[in-house]
Amino acid sequence: MATKIAVLLAGCGVYDGSEIHEVVLTLLALEQEGATFQCFAPNVEQMHVINHLTGDVMEESRNVLVEAARIARGEVLDLEQYQASDFDALVIPGGFGAAKNLCTFAVEGAEMSVNELVSKAVVSTHAAKKPIGALCIAPVLLAKLIADVRITLGDAGDAADGASKMGATHQVATHGEIVVDATHRIVTSPCYMLDATISQVAEGATALVREVISMTNG
Amino acid sequence: MATKIAVLLAGCGVYDGSEIHEVVLTLLALEQEGATFQCFAPNVEQMHVINHLTGDVMEESRNVLVEAARIARGEVLDLEQYQASDFDALVIPGGFGAAKNLCTFAVEGAEMSVNELVSKAVVSTHAAKKPIGALCIAPVLLAKLIADVRITLGDAGDAADGASKMGATHQVATHGEIVVDATHRIVTSPCYMLDATISQVAEGATALVREVISMTNG
Repeated sequence: MATKIAVLLAGCGVYDGSEIHEVVLTLLALEQEGATFQCFAPNVEQMHVINHLTGDVMEESRNVLVEAARIARGEVLDLEQYQASDFDALVIPGGFGAAKNLCTFAVEGAEMSVNELVSKAVVSTHAAKKPIGALCIAPVLLAKLIADVRITLGDAGDAADGASKMGATHQVATHGEIVVDATHRIVTSPCYMLDATISQVAEGATALVREVISMTNG
Repeated sequence: MATKIAVLLAGCGVYDGSEIHEVVLTLLALEQEGATFQCFAPNVEQMHVINHLTGDVMEESRNVLVEAARIARGEVLDLEQYQASDFDALVIPGGFGAAKNLCTFAVEGAEMSVNELVSKAVVSTHAAKKPIGALCIAPVLLAKLIADVRITLGDAGDAADGASKMGATHQVATHGEIVVDATHRIVTSPCYMLDATISQVAEGATALVREVISMTNG
C-alpha cells in the first residue's frame, strides 16, 4: 500500500493563497517518493484578492477551495471531508494564504486565530501520532496548535518571534534544510520564507517529503 | 553567459489559463539545466473564467497578464516588451489558456486566429533561427504560424487533426517523449494532452528544456 498524504491548500498564488511553486514541487516530490496525495482546502472566502502584478488589493472576492482547484486540476476536496484516519500524514505548503486564509497570523501575529476545520485537521492528525510537514510560513499553524513544538521559519525575524510568543522553539534553517521535531513528528522547511530560487524550493520540498514519509514508517 | 529563455504564459489554471504544473516544472527544469528565464504574457482579458472545482463558467473577468503573475510570483512582463533578440529561445507551456487566450483554437479549431503579439513573438523568434519549445496544446500555435512544421499533441485525435489541417505534420508521442523538428528548431512534448501524472509531466518538461537549450548551442 502506497503512503497516502493529505495536502492542505489555501488558495492559488503566493500573495493571497498557497505558494504555487511550493505546492507543485511538494506534489511532485510525493509522487516521486512513491506516495499518493489528496488535496484539501477550506470552503471559505479569501481574506482578500491581491493583483500579483502590482501588489494591490483587487475589488473582488474569491473562494479558497475554488481557487485551490486551479493548482490541483480540480482534484481538491472540501476540508470538511478530511479525516486523519484516512491518511498517513498531512503536508501544508506556504504562501501568504496560509497566514491569511487558514489563520490570521498575517494580520494578528501571535494573537492569531485558526480556521476551525484547519485546527481540527492539524490537532486530529497530531493526536493520531501521524507526521505533519509544513513549508514556508505554514509552520505558524503548528506553533499555535501544538504545545512546545520545534519549527523553522527560515531566518530569525518577526515571523520567528511570533512563533516563539506562541510557545514554539524556532530554529534557523537555510535553503533545502529541514527542521525535525521527532517528539511531535513535525517537519518544517523555509522554502520561500528565504529569498530562494525555484530549485532551492524543490530541494526543501523534497527533503521535507522524504522525512515525512520516513516518519510514517517509523 | 547563461542561456536566457523566455516563457510565454496564458493565465493561471489548466481550464482557462496556463497549466500550472507544466509552467512550474518548466521553470524548474530551466533553472536546473543552468538557464535563466523571464516570463511574459499578453495584457488581454481571458476568454472566460472557469471554476476549476465544478467546470462551470464564472460570471467575472480576469486579465491574462495579471493572473499569469500568480505563477510567476509577480515576475512577468507584458508580451509587448518581448524582443527575440533579448533571448536564446522561447518556451510555451500548455493548458486551455494557450488555446483560448493566445489563439482561438479551442473554439475555432483549424480556422483559428492568433493574438497579434503572440504571433509576432513566435514568428520573430523563428525568423531569428532561435528554438521554440511548446508543451501540451501549445504546439497548435506553431502549426498555424510555421509552415510545414512537425509537432506532437500526444495521441491522434481532434487536436492532431486540427494541426494537420493547418499544415503541420503530427507525430504521436507518449509520456516524457519529445518530438524534434530540427529544420525549424521546434521541440514539442504532450505532457497533459495525455492522462499524465505530475512526474510524467516533469519528465516531458525536462526533456523538452534540455533539447531546447542544446539547440541554442548548435
